[in-house]
Amino acid sequence: MNKPRFSGVFAPVITPFQEDLSPDANRLISHCQWLLGQGVGLAVFGTNSEANSLSVGEKKHLLDKLVAAGIDPAAMMPGTGSCALSDCIELTAHAVSLGCGGSLMLPPFYYKGVSDDGLYAFYSEVIQAVASEDLHIYLYHIPPISQVSVSLDLIDRLIKEYPANIAGIKDSSADWENTRALNAAGWPDFKVFCGSESFLLQNMTHGGAGCISATANVNPAAIRNLYDNWENNQAEQLQRRLDEVRAVFQRFPMIPALKAATAHFSNDREWLRVRPPITEMEPSQLQRLTTEMNNAEFTMPGLGFA
Amino acid sequence: MNKPRFSGVFAPVITPFQEDLSPDANRLISHCQWLLGQGVGLAVFGTNSEANSLSVGEKKHLLDKLVAAGIDPAAMMPGTGSCALSDCIELTAHAVSLGCGGSLMLPPFYYKGVSDDGLYAFYSEVIQAVASEDLHIYLYHIPPISQVSVSLDLIDRLIKEYPANIAGIKDSSADWENTRALNAAGWPDFKVFCGSESFLLQNMTHGGAGCISATANVNPAAIRNLYDNWENNQAEQLQRRLDEVRAVFQRFPMIPALKAATAHFSNDREWLRVRPPITEMEPSQLQRLTTEMNNAEFTMPGLGFA
Repeated sequence: MNKPRFSGVFAPVITPFQEDLSPDANRLISHCQWLLGQGVGLAVFGTNSEANSLSVGEKKHLLDKLVAAGIDPAAMMPGTGSCALSDCIELTAHAVSLGCGGSLMLPPFYYKGVSDDGLYAFYSEVIQAVASEDLHIYLYHIPPISQVSVSLDLIDRLIKEYPANIAGIKDSSADWENTRALNAAGWPDFKVFCGSESFLLQNMTHGGAGCISATANVNPAAIRNLYDNWENNQAEQLQRRLDEVRAVFQRFPMIPALKAATAHFSNDREWLRVRPPITEMEPSQLQRLTTEMNNAEFTMPGLGFA
Repeated sequence: MNKPRFSGVFAPVITPFQEDLSPDANRLISHCQWLLGQGVGLAVFGTNSEANSLSVGEKKHLLDKLVAAGIDPAAMMPGTGSCALSDCIELTAHAVSLGCGGSLMLPPFYYKGVSDDGLYAFYSEVIQAVASEDLHIYLYHIPPISQVSVSLDLIDRLIKEYPANIAGIKDSSADWENTRALNAAGWPDFKVFCGSESFLLQNMTHGGAGCISATANVNPAAIRNLYDNWENNQAEQLQRRLDEVRAVFQRFPMIPALKAATAHFSNDREWLRVRPPITEMEPSQLQRLTTEMNNAEFTMPGLGFA
């Protein structure tokens, strides 16, 4: 293994859109810079980035812009999974060529009930086509949305064949038993990220690598603080506070709520925009979110005019 | 309405792959020509075409090749739906520019639990971006696979706003009550295709337009024959025979079985190949399929060396 594997806290960075619904590279760059300053890495093109509403061309262009703006590609774990093998290869190869530290890779998610043999063949084709030891794949297990799972058996087969390339997993199953089993599997240097900071302390005590969480877009420093202090006395208290903040956002549709909080604390309504099929929050929901953030004494310090 | 809407029988044309897993345009052309000769139209890039395993660039290239080979674009209803708005716009605009008779359009299928407002906004953006009365959209309702539905309310809203563009639907719900309701909705010149020939006679007696069915790849002339003769005395007998043949294929994974039958009757093993995550049939399954096709006295006349 030539380069280190990731650990820590990552945000699936929300994607801003311009009035014509094209991605807004400048606002994305500035949000990424803020997130890095708060101590979290950049899982651009995750589920909460509306990544599957973007074309491969749009994603390649945004990656180019981020790197051109001086953002360290080594801090980036872009989502490069796709239904289409050819799309996944093209975007993954591009991420590797830019020097990205890893790729977060969904299984192909259109066809349902596919076999582990079929998923193994898919990942195999990608790894063989990209053909680089610099390709570090973080598998992405999110059955509630993809409806296609990454099983422990599949991971075991992939690691045996491609030990340099299979670096870890994001487990968004919300099933602690699965996250526990991933940590207990004994694969060398395999990095287990939970998909929500609600499991962060538990994941760290079981040998996990950190978390990749939607709400790291809005509450990055506090999540990072628990990651840095999980062995300290105050860890449980820090976890409880994270859970309080996350509970606010979980009362709303997650993607528009993350964007609404960012719009609110940066005083920039451009952030409200989403790409269909996701819909913006209604004015009454926006008001309720603001009230709940106030009640929870939640802010996003250092963001825009907050 | 400047151009006629579709009715009849369509095959979601299976997609052949070369050894490097790139699409095989020549074999696709020859299968399309055979299907047209059997009386069925070309719903290339459907679910059973492994369309969601292909990139937009691959699909545009194949469409170009089909048209260049002399296949009438007016007989084509390519699938142009995608998770990503930008992909759907690009492929749909290309199909319209080539003169395709219609576009079969999945709803965006990655994000689950999205609202009808979000789906309405998606289709609206596509229609406004393509901006052509020549765009005839056949909505594609296939909840078992897409997990995102096209509801009657959504269709009603779309027809009211875009009467020239919303031309019909393929209903692959396998829920006759839904197909019945679509036919009974009273939308002018709205074409209802069932997603399996099992419902063809029933669909025609309720005012439907025909069917778009996986097994039209292998049994096209017989399905077309029922379509042409649904008002005749022998219609129920023709339907029973279609059901017998379909039952053979339903005992196997559909996509590899369609390809295996095509490989068998054309004596061309290249047809067996699939793209991950779909997997080829095992030799024992291939043998069993051959036996069952023989028992059902099923052949594909006029195909290759059959």
